[in-house]
Amino acid sequence: MNDGLAARIAAGDRLALAKGLTLVERGVPEGVALACELFPRTGHAYRVGITGPPGVGKSTLAGALVRLLRKRNERIGVIAVDPSSAFTGGALLGDRVRMQEFAPDADVFIRSMATRGVLGGLARATMDSADLMDAYGADWILLETAGVGQSEIDVAEAADTTVVVVSPESGDGIQALKAGLAEIADVFVVNKADREGAERTERDLLAAQEFHADPARRSPPVFRTSAERNEGIEALLEGIVAHRSRMEGGTALRERRRSSLAAHVKRIVVDRVREMFGTNPALARRFEECLSRVESRGVGPYEAANELLELLFETNAPSRGEGNGPLSLPTAGTAPARQGPPRSARGKLGQRPPPPAEGGARSR
Amino acid sequence: MNDGLAARIAAGDRLALAKGLTLVERGVPEGVALACELFPRTGHAYRVGITGPPGVGKSTLAGALVRLLRKRNERIGVIAVDPSSAFTGGALLGDRVRMQEFAPDADVFIRSMATRGVLGGLARATMDSADLMDAYGADWILLETAGVGQSEIDVAEAADTTVVVVSPESGDGIQALKAGLAEIADVFVVNKADREGAERTERDLLAAQEFHADPARRSPPVFRTSAERNEGIEALLEGIVAHRSRMEGGTALRERRRSSLAAHVKRIVVDRVREMFGTNPALARRFEECLSRVESRGVGPYEAANELLELLFETNAPSRGEGNGPLSLPTAGTAPARQGPPRSARGKLGQRPPPPAEGGARSR
Repeated sequence: MNDGLAARIAAGDRLALAKGLTLVERGVPEGVALACELFPRTGHAYRVGITGPPGVGKSTLAGALVRLLRKRNERIGVIAVDPSSAFTGGALLGDRVRMQEFAPDADVFIRSMATRGVLGGLARATMDSADLMDAYGADWILLETAGVGQSEIDVAEAADTTVVVVSPESGDGIQALKAGLAEIADVFVVNKADREGAERTERDLLAAQEFHADPARRSPPVFRTSAERNEGIEALLEGIVAHRSRMEGGTALRERRRSSLAAHVKRIVVDRVREMFGTNPALARRFEECLSRVESRGVGPYEAANELLELLFETNAPSRGEGNGPLSLPTAGTAPARQGPPRSARGKLGQRPPPPAEGGARSR
Repeated sequence: MNDGLAARIAAGDRLALAKGLTLVERGVPEGVALACELFPRTGHAYRVGITGPPGVGKSTLAGALVRLLRKRNERIGVIAVDPSSAFTGGALLGDRVRMQEFAPDADVFIRSMATRGVLGGLARATMDSADLMDAYGADWILLETAGVGQSEIDVAEAADTTVVVVSPESGDGIQALKAGLAEIADVFVVNKADREGAERTERDLLAAQEFHADPARRSPPVFRTSAERNEGIEALLEGIVAHRSRMEGGTALRERRRSSLAAHVKRIVVDRVREMFGTNPALARRFEECLSRVESRGVGPYEAANELLELLFETNAPSRGEGNGPLSLPTAGTAPARQGPPRSARGKLGQRPPPPAEGGARSR
């Protein structure tokens, strides 16, 4: 199954991880099989979401955090969710280019994911990609998004700690609140804090918190950073670590991860149903036929949907389906033994020996 | 059914429309029944999406278009999709306030929709709301979004013509391209064109078009407006009308509407499945049980999803379901006769008598 890809990923093989990520992004059966096979090896990595409006310097900030975490000998995965363009057919390369300094470091794995061309949705692909990096042995996974709309909500759902980044410019604080970013923030960052208006932005963020609906998120701390100058990054990381400790101290982390898994499972169910419009010929035929009737106002969209649901249930019912044909999963192999260097069950900051020279040399 | 609400909406009763919109937004059964009942009366209104980054003046522009269309005696519906805030629990009121000048005009109906609290998703609610306004007798429906992420894609899907608005400030042209807005534009607007950089923004937009993936959208015209000064609005409206003529001239409009309906129907199917996690007790129980096994890494998310799908099909299969219990729709009444003033089957600009004095008096 997958040419031993799962075993190679679990052993820390970079090329295998790169190939595996492509498979899970595409949502092809091999990717699903791989995610299934590696899932038992997940749960170690701590997942930090980094989100905020475009242009606030999220990538630079993520880079600064990666550098600092590397100094502490942490193994890091970064998933950068890029907005995509029809003109190139792929993602804009800015973020990837900025992260190139880490390319030769075996303990930093960076992946850009375009918002288009990901079958079954970005949220599913993000979760699966994070799981692969987790199984690969990442201690920390940074999930960075473009900060537009649904994607940051998905990231917050997948993250253990969500960092919302704003800048002092163009009323970002208020815009962030407008866009609902405050609702998902565990930690606020005012980046580009050397520019005018940083204080005011911080005040806006603090003032708004009092009215927050969710008590658990009522008082996220606000940090000021200048990622380009590498200022304030240590304090921010300590803030993230402090939030992590609070999450791990009680039941909060477990609860958040359970609700993240719940969303993931539900999404897979729903995606499967959506896929059947393409894979179930009877459904595809009836769909076109229904559409023609809706077009001519013979039936409404809800009646058509009902008719299709009934057909869906009928054609997939166990009594008729003979086994679970349309639902069969690729058989998951047994999880391979981990061949890489041993690591502690819950690797935290500073628990491991210093980084190898080539990694350290790359940190500033 | 619905206390004759459908009949009253079809007769042009504003209060009935307001009540009906609340029902379809909430996604409650009465709303579904209403949408079903009124669907045969839809198809008349021409739907224009207005989208773009926050702060470019979309609401002001929409207001200017409404004013101009009112001078031409068109009946207009506006659906403004607002970002919502956790602090108020609802939508920010800016857009609504700006549109208040139209409040007493019976031929302008404006609805703000918050991105939260809409059951079954904003896209579904937007389509249903537009259908209600269509059945109410709107000639034009403007769909305005906050322009963040998925919402503008949904709007483009629901619209016959999509207008993408940018401003000369802060590299909006490039940001719009980055966010994939160019892919959905039929018409570009550089608003706030009196400000510095308008020419450059226009150039950016024009330059990017050559590489466009979809030939049908390869050369959207670019208009410069200053909505606050009411400049350039007539030219823009003519541009929209020109696009409409091209769409109506061939099969393009029919194709776009069919694919819009296809997305709508598919979404309803998928939403129904998602709802069943709450409404089907066997499924809800098994879901929690599966989650616990996923949490302990006993099964993976994909295996859990499969198990749930099988249960879903089993419990809903026609042989066991006894009738179509879980799928039953409220019975749609017969569509009421239209009691309002007669209107042409495809009312276009200038085909009707001048507006009533109270409407005209409100136009600038």
